[in-house]
Amino acid sequence: MTTIIDGKQLARDLNAQTQARVTRLAQRGVVPGLAVIIVGADPASSIYVRNKHRKAGQLGIHSVVRELPATTTQAELLAVVAAYNADPTVHGILVQSPLPAQLDERAIFNAIAPIKDVDGFHPVNTGKLFGNLPGHYPVSCTPQGIMTMLHSLHQPLAGKRAVVVGRSNIVGRPMAALLLNADLSVTVTHRHDPQIRDLTTLADVLVVATGVAHLIKAEDVKPGAIVIDVGMDRGADGKLTGDVDFDAVKDVAGAISPVPGGVGPMTIATLMQQTVDLCEWSEQRGNN
Amino acid sequence: MTTIIDGKQLARDLNAQTQARVTRLAQRGVVPGLAVIIVGADPASSIYVRNKHRKAGQLGIHSVVRELPATTTQAELLAVVAAYNADPTVHGILVQSPLPAQLDERAIFNAIAPIKDVDGFHPVNTGKLFGNLPGHYPVSCTPQGIMTMLHSLHQPLAGKRAVVVGRSNIVGRPMAALLLNADLSVTVTHRHDPQIRDLTTLADVLVVATGVAHLIKAEDVKPGAIVIDVGMDRGADGKLTGDVDFDAVKDVAGAISPVPGGVGPMTIATLMQQTVDLCEWSEQRGNN
Repeated sequence: MTTIIDGKQLARDLNAQTQARVTRLAQRGVVPGLAVIIVGADPASSIYVRNKHRKAGQLGIHSVVRELPATTTQAELLAVVAAYNADPTVHGILVQSPLPAQLDERAIFNAIAPIKDVDGFHPVNTGKLFGNLPGHYPVSCTPQGIMTMLHSLHQPLAGKRAVVVGRSNIVGRPMAALLLNADLSVTVTHRHDPQIRDLTTLADVLVVATGVAHLIKAEDVKPGAIVIDVGMDRGADGKLTGDVDFDAVKDVAGAISPVPGGVGPMTIATLMQQTVDLCEWSEQRGNN
Repeated sequence: MTTIIDGKQLARDLNAQTQARVTRLAQRGVVPGLAVIIVGADPASSIYVRNKHRKAGQLGIHSVVRELPATTTQAELLAVVAAYNADPTVHGILVQSPLPAQLDERAIFNAIAPIKDVDGFHPVNTGKLFGNLPGHYPVSCTPQGIMTMLHSLHQPLAGKRAVVVGRSNIVGRPMAALLLNADLSVTVTHRHDPQIRDLTTLADVLVVATGVAHLIKAEDVKPGAIVIDVGMDRGADGKLTGDVDFDAVKDVAGAISPVPGGVGPMTIATLMQQTVDLCEWSEQRGNN
């Protein structure tokens, strides 16, 4: 009965579409370009960056990884960002988070040209998303990928209720905006609420992004709900697990995304999709 | 038992604070300036603009009202905005909505310099609000004024549940962001939800901005809730009324704002407050 939302398969499908778009661009001599900047040698970040670089290469996207030492200053990093802002072969710029403590992450994000802001973190882009303004703009990749997952279920979303647990700028807040713009009623709840279960049990669509392993149990979920697990937690056994107690919740939910193999692959696939979006929008503006 | 939230009195208090700030600025030779642009002769808009102009004058704010003919073109209006953007005596620019049909309202709002965007409609400012970013930025006056009303009750807000009915860019969306940033769980619902009462009855703080007279009845409200009515509706008798059935809901709510005399006066008082904010922030940047 319960649909397991196969993020790996959906990511393969999306990547195939992206690759086809890259091929069409190549026929006009255009190559989408992605620059990823990593500062210091955080092991998890290095793995993420390597995965993004490999996937971009597979799809025919020109990928540049710029590794900077952990001692990089704000001015040095801003200069690197400015150079990519001015580089016409680069359509998307991503600064891998977290940055070393001496760097002001928000000031760096704000320095990325909004038209190259492939992570969708610049206030100009979040402001447009939040206001549901017309026109093209990038959106944070994880929630954008979740929208693709929801649409893959071919269920009407308008008029449904969504509950988002967690209010980060990377996931919770842009997720809420996307769902509101899709005509759902949307609740955002978080650790300040003494009893989030009162709210989660109302959700037709439940998105959980808290970083707390197995926070959401079967009794927290409305029967038949669509449950999306953004968690990437390490269990006591060292294995990757989610914010949702998958084995219990899958018997209650109508559809559920697993961890691993759910949101994770879709985030990278959406990053690739959006790099090509930015390239195409640049073409449309006549900037190439 | 029920507290009637007296928007007129709160506005008087806020205006007194604003006037004191204007006096302090005057001692340094600085006069906050507000430019209001009105296109065409919409009667309601003319009344709003006149009220803003009069209030600004009372408080010592330099107020300019620029009346343009209904036939004004986009280029002409953009030129007027650009002139005020460059005018150091003007700290806040407001383009009165609605604009005649030949004008692209969003493009006009986006042309206002974010540091002079006294209505808080520019995506740079809404993006900062939505992301709860640090630093100073203007916020849409009606929801900002509602936060002042809520704080006047001296009740803790963190961990409470808020429900916002309506998702406009002027009220519903920025209201939701302000409440989320104040650590409430926040639900935004709207006309697509088939049964908004399921949600409104959860609200410790209920903000209603739908334009539907008396949409919210006693049974839609949680006992003891704080109810804020943003409606400005004309009843069958021609009298101004709200989106909340005040006479019935006041016996259920813990606190309630009336219409008229609630949100309306606070919106204008907040506009004045924010004009002085923009002036002071300009001073801090050394732009005067």
